[in-house]
Amino acid sequence: MSDVPESYARTARTTPTRYKDRATWEQAEIHAVLDSSWVCHLGFTDGEGRPVVLPTIFARVDDRLYLHGSTGSRPLRAAGAPAGLPVCVTVTQVDALVLTKSAFNHSVNFRSVVAHGTAEQVTDPQELAIALDALVDQAVPGRAKDCRPGNPKELAKTAVIRLVLDEVSAKTRADGADDDPEDAGLPYWSGVVPVATVYGAPVPHPGTERELPAYLRDFQPAGAPC
Amino acid sequence: MSDVPESYARTARTTPTRYKDRATWEQAEIHAVLDSSWVCHLGFTDGEGRPVVLPTIFARVDDRLYLHGSTGSRPLRAAGAPAGLPVCVTVTQVDALVLTKSAFNHSVNFRSVVAHGTAEQVTDPQELAIALDALVDQAVPGRAKDCRPGNPKELAKTAVIRLVLDEVSAKTRADGADDDPEDAGLPYWSGVVPVATVYGAPVPHPGTERELPAYLRDFQPAGAPC
Repeated sequence: MSDVPESYARTARTTPTRYKDRATWEQAEIHAVLDSSWVCHLGFTDGEGRPVVLPTIFARVDDRLYLHGSTGSRPLRAAGAPAGLPVCVTVTQVDALVLTKSAFNHSVNFRSVVAHGTAEQVTDPQELAIALDALVDQAVPGRAKDCRPGNPKELAKTAVIRLVLDEVSAKTRADGADDDPEDAGLPYWSGVVPVATVYGAPVPHPGTERELPAYLRDFQPAGAPC
Repeated sequence: MSDVPESYARTARTTPTRYKDRATWEQAEIHAVLDSSWVCHLGFTDGEGRPVVLPTIFARVDDRLYLHGSTGSRPLRAAGAPAGLPVCVTVTQVDALVLTKSAFNHSVNFRSVVAHGTAEQVTDPQELAIALDALVDQAVPGRAKDCRPGNPKELAKTAVIRLVLDEVSAKTRADGADDDPEDAGLPYWSGVVPVATVYGAPVPHPGTERELPAYLRDFQPAGAPC
């Protein structure tokens, strides 16, 4: 489906100034981080060039990220302009606190993706339908087929933007406490405290008759609990 | 300590265009959201005016947010300029997926804070020490006193920036499935799936002799698991 190469091109802004060994441009690794989440932080600049960062949900389809919102929202409207909207979309999963004997060496195990580019509004009805289904299924796989699709009035209120994955990298730390050898004798605890996102038992809306769908049983899409 | 009023002033960019009832400018509510987390997304613009969003840790002390990084990192360096660095710092906690009978009404329960302003580098040694301790203690309360403080070489490598909370708001959704009355008869499950950040049992670094400190026992600082 996609003709994106196996590794995204490195550019100045996807090459970190430090901890270069934590960075990757490999498509499979980047997609895996994106697919383990459904919340991103969308960065753009306002009319006066000032940065704005808003949390929102996203979906990945092949080499495209989709975000949505009200047709009245500021970034969604701005992305509808012919030039599109320069954005930075960042997805972060925290995996552990890393405690070392020195304050300085404390760290965090994490996986993050930072994608730069120009977001454009999706106008093709077929792409719009794919994107809206993906936005539901990214968080709850199987859900898009098991709810009422948008009607014309709802669709008219909804804007979707597309960011093609092109200038994108992932950063990962997955390691233990990295104590300095000279700190070895210090009487402080060092180690790792796992952090995870977990999902509780679904709570039906009062009056719901339908039994819990299969896709909501043992629902832990973002990885096993710690 | 702080002479910030009980509510932050509303401005155009801290007043949402939609779901105004989800927004608050109350200091206590904003601080509570900030204090429930230690990860933020820092937004700034690069030398060409393009948005960049990076995940990083933060600490709140009174009405100030502190972020840190290498003295060589791009935003930290930029914040050292006399004019400071225009930033947007966003903190997001996800509390539930909200599934409704229609795709359109699906939602997310969340708490987020968006803070706008100009970040400046901290240069006063006393403020620097407070900020660095707070950055450790925000994630693991009590930890800053129980590890080796930074030595001159480490401190020389570390930059800290300060964002005064001034133009800031919180947004919260904490509600059930909001189905349209006309969807009541549809055969789809609706309800809420709780989401939480949980902490696993600390894993000591091989060879660590110190027993687990009290502040790491039953460690669940970001709220009870679901």
